[in-house]
Amino acid sequence: MRIHHVGVAVADLDAAIQLYTDLFGAELMHRASNEADGLAAAFLRAGGAEVELLSPLREDTPVGKFLAKRGPGLHHIAVAVHDIDKAMADARAAGLELIDAEPRIGLHGTRIAFIHPKSVGGVLTEFVET
Amino acid sequence: MRIHHVGVAVADLDAAIQLYTDLFGAELMHRASNEADGLAAAFLRAGGAEVELLSPLREDTPVGKFLAKRGPGLHHIAVAVHDIDKAMADARAAGLELIDAEPRIGLHGTRIAFIHPKSVGGVLTEFVET
Repeated sequence: MRIHHVGVAVADLDAAIQLYTDLFGAELMHRASNEADGLAAAFLRAGGAEVELLSPLREDTPVGKFLAKRGPGLHHIAVAVHDIDKAMADARAAGLELIDAEPRIGLHGTRIAFIHPKSVGGVLTEFVET
Repeated sequence: MRIHHVGVAVADLDAAIQLYTDLFGAELMHRASNEADGLAAAFLRAGGAEVELLSPLREDTPVGKFLAKRGPGLHHIAVAVHDIDKAMADARAAGLELIDAEPRIGLHGTRIAFIHPKSVGGVLTEFVET
């Protein structure tokens, strides 16, 4: 197992970037946004893993609803996998519920899929193919 | 910045260990418990970082209260620092509220201190001296 990144839901993306770079010495790698998903993100280097700061562009999005319901904070954990099709098949075979029926392209430009938090002890978990 | 570990609050420690080792291929390194803190934990290797599974021994503990209020899920993120005294002084100077006024010894046997989540965008954040 390798943690690819930890996703953090934030209300103010610029303020969050400043906090993580100034206080924790994280390196801002790049920013991205996806109008269709209503999501703006910043990717910070944090050792072998990354911190992914997530800010909704609209309220009617998954991260927008998360912020409204739970407030800012830890959102998900992403696990690097070599073969996402196999990882998803193994998860299904183990009885886990996948949110994404098929892999889709994430903000990193690689194939991703989410597992429902109820199948992973309340932790929204993402597979990232690397 | 280097993520030292991600802390996950779980209701059933053995079931959570099995999930992370079987499904994600994580390696169980060791388990520990601290009667004074009312906490049992399992440490799993996840690339350069770790997943720390946390299970309360009693309800009247920080993790016990977290489970009762929010249910199982992502609990905290820990950042590796070389000099925890300096990290705490820098955090204080930046106006952040520390939960621990002085470093204390964590379950890893190293010096740790927690920053209040309200100072880090809702993320309970731990310094771990390495």
